[in-house]
Amino acid sequence: MKFTHEALPQRVVFATGEAAASVVAEVTALDRTSVFLVASDREAELAEPVQAALEAAGIAVTTHREVVMHVPVEVAERARAAAVAAGADVVVSVGGGSTTGLGKAVVMDGSPFAGVPLIAVPTTYAGSEATNVWGLTVGETKTTGVDNRVLPASIVYDATLLTSLTRDMTVASGLNALAHSVDAMWGPRADPIDRAFAQEGIRGLAEGLPLVAADHASIEGIEQTLYGAYLSAVAFASAGSGMHHKICHVLGGMFNLPHAQTHATVLPHVLAFNAPNAPDAEQRIAAAFGSATATDGLRALRARLGAHVEVPGALQAYGMPEDGIAKALEPIKAAIPATNPTPITDENLTALLQAAWKGHLP
Amino acid sequence: MKFTHEALPQRVVFATGEAAASVVAEVTALDRTSVFLVASDREAELAEPVQAALEAAGIAVTTHREVVMHVPVEVAERARAAAVAAGADVVVSVGGGSTTGLGKAVVMDGSPFAGVPLIAVPTTYAGSEATNVWGLTVGETKTTGVDNRVLPASIVYDATLLTSLTRDMTVASGLNALAHSVDAMWGPRADPIDRAFAQEGIRGLAEGLPLVAADHASIEGIEQTLYGAYLSAVAFASAGSGMHHKICHVLGGMFNLPHAQTHATVLPHVLAFNAPNAPDAEQRIAAAFGSATATDGLRALRARLGAHVEVPGALQAYGMPEDGIAKALEPIKAAIPATNPTPITDENLTALLQAAWKGHLP
Repeated sequence: MKFTHEALPQRVVFATGEAAASVVAEVTALDRTSVFLVASDREAELAEPVQAALEAAGIAVTTHREVVMHVPVEVAERARAAAVAAGADVVVSVGGGSTTGLGKAVVMDGSPFAGVPLIAVPTTYAGSEATNVWGLTVGETKTTGVDNRVLPASIVYDATLLTSLTRDMTVASGLNALAHSVDAMWGPRADPIDRAFAQEGIRGLAEGLPLVAADHASIEGIEQTLYGAYLSAVAFASAGSGMHHKICHVLGGMFNLPHAQTHATVLPHVLAFNAPNAPDAEQRIAAAFGSATATDGLRALRARLGAHVEVPGALQAYGMPEDGIAKALEPIKAAIPATNPTPITDENLTALLQAAWKGHLP
Repeated sequence: MKFTHEALPQRVVFATGEAAASVVAEVTALDRTSVFLVASDREAELAEPVQAALEAAGIAVTTHREVVMHVPVEVAERARAAAVAAGADVVVSVGGGSTTGLGKAVVMDGSPFAGVPLIAVPTTYAGSEATNVWGLTVGETKTTGVDNRVLPASIVYDATLLTSLTRDMTVASGLNALAHSVDAMWGPRADPIDRAFAQEGIRGLAEGLPLVAADHASIEGIEQTLYGAYLSAVAFASAGSGMHHKICHVLGGMFNLPHAQTHATVLPHVLAFNAPNAPDAEQRIAAAFGSATATDGLRALRARLGAHVEVPGALQAYGMPEDGIAKALEPIKAAIPATNPTPITDENLTALLQAAWKGHLP
């Protein structure tokens, strides 16, 4: 047993129906008086009650609406300047991964706002709120990095903020969260604590997702899915990207594939590929699903979700050309960690990509 | 789903056989140059290689040997003064709960050394290294409190430091750790994250303890037991004392009972008392033990350990008088959290204490 696990400091508040009051409580506990509130136009309706509660508590609020996917650096610069102009002393983000990402860009190393605390109020299952990872895009190049200052001081999870997500969006976002926990089992820094978090994350997602697929406004389903997505993100950030995320990253970049659908499609193939040589992961994932094997568990979950929504199943459906398999082979091989449980060969990786392209489930 | 979970920052290093090098690495990573090294006379042999490695790395070391159980305040004061005189900038403790406790007393709020980082190298399964709880004794009164400054910045777990613990000590200390995770299931602040940590802690202890009971120097057994004890302590510190710890605290104080033995004796009774009304705990504990029910799992573990060592089973064996049951009833009732899964009555609490006193396992 040889590993170093770094636990990060964060308050995690689950408060269904109480986002506004909880944000006020967290801001007050931090002894802050002026909030820079980040939420896109699409998320403004969800952010308004938070703003109203803050103002009613005598806390100044400056709103910022310009949120762009993948956090272009010029968008980040404008947000930083606005936060400085506002004289804010805390940042609150209400929204999905791009909004949380902009909040992180405002408080990261190199920003005039570096070190100012961030409070994240998620409205999807992206999981960014639980990690110390930031991302910025310069031109067409996305850079990511690690900085403990971007880890939100508090997360406020309020299931009622996710009741307007469609079932399709929920399932795609939830399967993306599931990819975090499955890949955390064999990420380059994966340790037993990460795997325990990931196991509990899978359990939560497997319990919550079928409820939300059946009824997109199921509070119990959203709560369990949020809980699972949170734990999955913690595990993934600690363990680092494994084979699954390396494949999706290369394919997504080469062929401009949709993010969540790519993850949902590739995941069963990587799981079936690695599980036979990862006994601890196999046992934990099967236990989390309550199934005989890990692969059985994921197959059963996809079938349950498939009764309500279309579950992504073939890369060809998203515009990846068949000859892309050969093109992607070398970059993927170069990216997969050397510690991957099943050794990679041209043959087994090609077979995996062909199956994922055609939609032949393992 | 309504709870607030506070994750605390800590580096957790598992490095069997490499305590000395790992402590040097942690001190260096903190950019510190002068260590105040706390270890009792009994622990000096384990601390010497750490001291030698630090000095070989050019780091100054001042040793401190006066360690007393329950951390009397005058012992703490002398340690603080010695740390100041040494001009140290980091505290390293090598030892059991009392030694970690003295290290915490040196860096806690109110000490001239408050805020100086502490690195803990545990040599028992006490778990104090994983919590933000300190304890000090003034006269006969022990006071405990919470202060994030006393949470060690790093823990270095080295299984080879525990190979000289006897099997009896190991089993008593390990069952004390098990009481942390079981009681965390229904502690006053217990949340699902605590219960997931506790479940994984029980799994580690149930795997490790039989190995160490059979062979006190089993590295695999010690590693799993340390891992389980760490997670159990994290869960317990977050969830707070439940029914089990309240009972043991009252009985221990009233009748001067031995700590670990009291916990080992009372635990099966509290588990059988609460499990029927705590379905999540019941399911998690059974899953961790791999048994049909939580109570079955603990019974089977005690039986496996009992094949090698005597497992504490009756409070009367430790000098508690039979009329102590009636005397302890009211103080225990007053101490048990109102949120306890099974409501307390004079009748059911008396029956529990009688069974624990006589040694009638549930």
